[in-house]
Amino acid sequence: MQDRAAQLFRDLQSSYCDALESIDGEGVFQEERWDRADISGSWGGGGVSRLLKPGRIFEQAGVNFSLVHGVLPSEMVNKLIGEQEEREFLATGVSLVIHPHSPHIPTIHLNFRYLEVSSKAWFGGGIDLTPYVFHPEDFGHFHSTLKKACDQWDPACYERYKRWCDEYFYLPHRQEARGVGGIFFDYRGRDNDEDLETSFDFVKGVSSYFLESYLPIISRQRLTPFSEKMKRFQLLRRGRYVEFNLLYDRGTLFGLKTGGRVASVFMSMPPEAQWAPVEGYPSDCADSALLEVLSTPRSWIEEGGSTLSCKE
Amino acid sequence: MQDRAAQLFRDLQSSYCDALESIDGEGVFQEERWDRADISGSWGGGGVSRLLKPGRIFEQAGVNFSLVHGVLPSEMVNKLIGEQEEREFLATGVSLVIHPHSPHIPTIHLNFRYLEVSSKAWFGGGIDLTPYVFHPEDFGHFHSTLKKACDQWDPACYERYKRWCDEYFYLPHRQEARGVGGIFFDYRGRDNDEDLETSFDFVKGVSSYFLESYLPIISRQRLTPFSEKMKRFQLLRRGRYVEFNLLYDRGTLFGLKTGGRVASVFMSMPPEAQWAPVEGYPSDCADSALLEVLSTPRSWIEEGGSTLSCKE
Repeated sequence: MQDRAAQLFRDLQSSYCDALESIDGEGVFQEERWDRADISGSWGGGGVSRLLKPGRIFEQAGVNFSLVHGVLPSEMVNKLIGEQEEREFLATGVSLVIHPHSPHIPTIHLNFRYLEVSSKAWFGGGIDLTPYVFHPEDFGHFHSTLKKACDQWDPACYERYKRWCDEYFYLPHRQEARGVGGIFFDYRGRDNDEDLETSFDFVKGVSSYFLESYLPIISRQRLTPFSEKMKRFQLLRRGRYVEFNLLYDRGTLFGLKTGGRVASVFMSMPPEAQWAPVEGYPSDCADSALLEVLSTPRSWIEEGGSTLSCKE
Repeated sequence: MQDRAAQLFRDLQSSYCDALESIDGEGVFQEERWDRADISGSWGGGGVSRLLKPGRIFEQAGVNFSLVHGVLPSEMVNKLIGEQEEREFLATGVSLVIHPHSPHIPTIHLNFRYLEVSSKAWFGGGIDLTPYVFHPEDFGHFHSTLKKACDQWDPACYERYKRWCDEYFYLPHRQEARGVGGIFFDYRGRDNDEDLETSFDFVKGVSSYFLESYLPIISRQRLTPFSEKMKRFQLLRRGRYVEFNLLYDRGTLFGLKTGGRVASVFMSMPPEAQWAPVEGYPSDCADSALLEVLSTPRSWIEEGGSTLSCKE
């Protein structure tokens, strides 16, 4: 399964990059390979980072593949499988974070991963959207596509994974969601709730819908004019994105603690972010409709249309 | 001691603000008062936040006073005094963070605080400098002034507190110091190593040297022209400042965990920061002399002059 999972994630990296280059029309991905030194002293795998910046649409887009292995510190082992000792581990995954120039086009994050720790193995992942302007039809399209994907491979999981996503991407100190969510799941297959083969099929199936969930939003919004206030609000909201990544995100902290390449772990960071020293947001730039749904997550399946097609 | 410590910190807030307004010449501090709800449900104190932004010299300057009390979660009690249960606590302090426009003028951070947890009481604090351009004479002036202050009230502590500062303001994942340090100390008086009266005198004495340590640097650098590359490097280094605050800073995490006012806790955040998705820094803007001292902290007492005076 290690090999098949790694191959799937490599293939996803390629197909995502091709499609993103194509829609950007200008930016080209640069590739960097890196090696990881394991805490045991031996070679601990590595990764292939692909970075596009800045393009016509994307201010920064990173699509990373990694396959790392070695000895996992007992603290991490405890968190992942509840055992108390150092264990051998292997992790492979694909991660994507896109920060577009225009505030009309949301930031998007995707991650799919396969882990083996001691005798346990499982898949996890998710896709979530962080918008800067309230465009309910786009959020509806995004969620409808994810629901369609989930329904095809595991009916009934969409609602659960949508809730999990809302709970995970939440900033308690701000009492605010990071964005309008998506899906998030972990530990598929770990506790023998299903065989790994089925988990693999689910991940392969759902990940194949990513482009359909996101590209139509770009096509629809790429020429929409935006104001300085919208840009200011985007930069402030990107500050919250940074807060989430550094205070709460398990992927970021896992990467830093297991000696991942810092530039690759931090490709999720926006090229530019701002903070305003006020409670909430400055009233002159805040998108109140968006803030409303950030403070109270809601369903996007009925309200938004799911009628956008993937063609431009 | 509660009252006297709180009064000292209020007075420091006032005198720091007056001096900063005076040297900026344009910005005026705005004051906001806030109340804190304790986890026990009762009133838990509050604070007075003063914020100047943006002025002629300062892009953002915050000087906060707070006096909070109530019940401290057992996890925090354990960290502070090694006991395992919820305890009554009181904390009062003054914090200051200044982000100047010009990369020639360093960001500065100051904090002095008094804590009571259960039957223990102690003082802590520090002052540290985060420069963006290598100006060894300024770093020398800064450290010499702090050494003079320490020597007057507790000879021999400067070296220890300088090292403590270098160790505390360090980003392991970047293998880089936050800046050129200063002094940092904690738990003065907690373990009956000295009486609280002596700790109080030390804090009062050292804090009175803050303006002398910083204002002459402003006077010397305020008109120095800077390039776009220097500004870019400042914004990238501010990104690291954000990383430190959210990943490691105990004050920030203490504030968030004890229900402090988020806008006050986060007044340390820069108004604007950037990230570059590369290892280290982009070579076209990095100040290599500065990076050298960030990767290997050194003494600033002999090298730099301490001849700058506080007069403009």
